[in-house]
Amino acid sequence: MKYGIIGTGAIGGYYGARLAYAGKDVHFLLHHDYKQVKEHGLYVKSYQGDFHLPHIHSYASTHDMPICDIVLVCLKTTNNHLLPSLLPPLLHPDTLVVLIQNGIGVEEDVQKQFPLLQLTAGLAFICSAKTEAGVIHHQSYGQINLGNYSCRNQALIKSLLTDFQQAGIEAQEVEYTEARWKKAVWNMAFNGTTVVLDTQTDQLLKNQITYTLIKDLMLEVIHAAKACGAGNITDEFAQTMLDKTLKMPPYSPSMKLDYDFGRPMEIDYIYSRAIQMARKAGYPMKKMEVVEAALRYKELRHHLSSSPSK
Amino acid sequence: MKYGIIGTGAIGGYYGARLAYAGKDVHFLLHHDYKQVKEHGLYVKSYQGDFHLPHIHSYASTHDMPICDIVLVCLKTTNNHLLPSLLPPLLHPDTLVVLIQNGIGVEEDVQKQFPLLQLTAGLAFICSAKTEAGVIHHQSYGQINLGNYSCRNQALIKSLLTDFQQAGIEAQEVEYTEARWKKAVWNMAFNGTTVVLDTQTDQLLKNQITYTLIKDLMLEVIHAAKACGAGNITDEFAQTMLDKTLKMPPYSPSMKLDYDFGRPMEIDYIYSRAIQMARKAGYPMKKMEVVEAALRYKELRHHLSSSPSK
Repeated sequence: MKYGIIGTGAIGGYYGARLAYAGKDVHFLLHHDYKQVKEHGLYVKSYQGDFHLPHIHSYASTHDMPICDIVLVCLKTTNNHLLPSLLPPLLHPDTLVVLIQNGIGVEEDVQKQFPLLQLTAGLAFICSAKTEAGVIHHQSYGQINLGNYSCRNQALIKSLLTDFQQAGIEAQEVEYTEARWKKAVWNMAFNGTTVVLDTQTDQLLKNQITYTLIKDLMLEVIHAAKACGAGNITDEFAQTMLDKTLKMPPYSPSMKLDYDFGRPMEIDYIYSRAIQMARKAGYPMKKMEVVEAALRYKELRHHLSSSPSK
Repeated sequence: MKYGIIGTGAIGGYYGARLAYAGKDVHFLLHHDYKQVKEHGLYVKSYQGDFHLPHIHSYASTHDMPICDIVLVCLKTTNNHLLPSLLPPLLHPDTLVVLIQNGIGVEEDVQKQFPLLQLTAGLAFICSAKTEAGVIHHQSYGQINLGNYSCRNQALIKSLLTDFQQAGIEAQEVEYTEARWKKAVWNMAFNGTTVVLDTQTDQLLKNQITYTLIKDLMLEVIHAAKACGAGNITDEFAQTMLDKTLKMPPYSPSMKLDYDFGRPMEIDYIYSRAIQMARKAGYPMKKMEVVEAALRYKELRHHLSSSPSK
C-alpha cells in the first residue's frame, strides 16, 4: 500500500508521520518546507511522546511522486482549486482519496472535478499545529473518523483503518453525512466566534454568556443536521463537545490562525455551504448567519487593510 | 412652563438648547462640564445653523434647581440608579418626566422607583454628539416622538409638542409600545454590530453581506415587536430605516462611542430586556442573542483589560 500525503502541515504532517513511523510506505508533498524537510526530516512533538523521522519521501511536485493506493488530501479547502492539477499524477483506477478537510459540501465539489474518483471524508478530532518548517506540534486528541462518500472498494477503507490503528491512531468508520455534520458541530461553533471575538476556546467557555452562545450554536448545527438527513446526532452531543473542549488546552481553531496570519479563511465550506444546505432543507440557521456575516465583513476589512494599495 | 434637563450631553444639551434658544424657561443639570458651561454657555453646531447660548440656567445639583413642570431625562440608562436621588427636588404632583433614553423597559423600571410619577417616552431620531465640554455637534435629523406611558394630564404633552415645534424641533405623539419598538429597530441593528465589528453605519451598509445582516436584524426586531403588541410596524419600516441611514454621514451609534471611551454600554435596555420580553411573548430573537452575547463578552474583556489589577 502506497500512501500519498497532499499538504504536509498540521494535519497531513501528523497523520503521515504516524503512518511512516509505523513503517508504512508514505510519500509527502511539500511546498514552502520542502528543502528544510528534505534535509532534516519531520519532527512530531506529541503529548503522547515526541518522535523524529530523519528521512522521509518528500516531493516538491506530485509529478515526481509514485502512483498511490490511498491519498490523504490535507490542504485547506481554500486551495481545492489546485486539486485538478495536483491529483492526477497520483491516481490509478482504484485509488482512494481521503479528504481530511473541514466543512460541508467538500466531497460534492471534488467529485464534480473527478467524477469517477473514490472519495471518503476524513474527520480529524485533533489539536495540532505546524509550529515551524518540518515541526508538527500535536497538542491533544488525534482520533480520525472516516465517512465513505463514493468508495466502491470497501476493502481499501478497512486497510486504511487497520494501518491507522497500527500507527497508534484511533480510527473508525462512520456514516458520511452524520460524520460531516458531527464535525461541523464543533467547527461552526468555535471557528467563527474565536475570530469575531479575537479569543480562544477556553475564554469562550469560561464565561456563562459565551458558554451559552457556543452551546446554542452547537444545537443549531445539530438541528440543521437533522433537517439535512443526519438525524442521529442527539442534543446531548453538544454537551459532549463542550466537555471535550473544556479538557483541551486554550486553543485557536484553524480559522483563527488563518485570520491572524492573513491567510484566507474557510468560510465557504465551514459556514456558507452548511447554512445554504440547511436553508434549502427548511431550517434557517439564524445564529450562524450572524457569525457568517461578521466573518465575511472581517475578511473584507482584513483584506483591505493588508492590501498594498491602501 | 419650567423645563428641567437632567443630563446636558448630546441629547439633553441639544433639545434643551433649542428650547432655551426659542425663549423657553430651561434649567440644565451639568456634571463634569458645569464650570465651563457656567462661564461660556452652550454652543450648538448644527447642520441647520450654529447658535450660542452665552448664559443658561446651569446647576451642579438638582437640589439647587427650581421645581419643574416638565423634566427631560437625558442620562444614559446605565445611570438610572441615580434617579431616586436626582429627581425628587424637581417634582410637583403634576410634573411630567420624559425619558429620552434608549431601549425597551425603561419606563417600567423608573415607574417602579416613582409609582405616581407621570412618565412619557421620548424617542429621538437624531445624530448628535458632545464633542467637547459645552459643545454639541448636531450632525443630522433631530425629530422626536413622544409615547405616553403614564401621563394623566394630556395637556402637558400637547404643550411640550407645541414648545418643541416652536423651537424648530419636529415632534409628534405616537403610541407608546410602537414608539419604543420602532426606535429599537434602528438601535438594535446598529449599536451592537458597530461595536462587535469595530465600524460605523456607512461601512456596514456598503457591503452586501452586512447590509443583509442589518436588514435581517431589523426584521427580527419588527417581528419581536409584533409578538410584544406593537403590531403596526410593517416590514417596509426596515427599508425606511436603511434608506434614512444611507443618507446619514458615517455614524458611530452611542454604544460604539461608549465602548470606545471605556464607558459602560447600555446592553441591558438596548438588548437584554427586549430579547427577554420577546422570548416571553413566544418569539426568540435568535440573531440578536448572538449580538448580545458578543457584546457581553467584549464588555467583560474591555473591563478586564482596563482594570488596574491587570
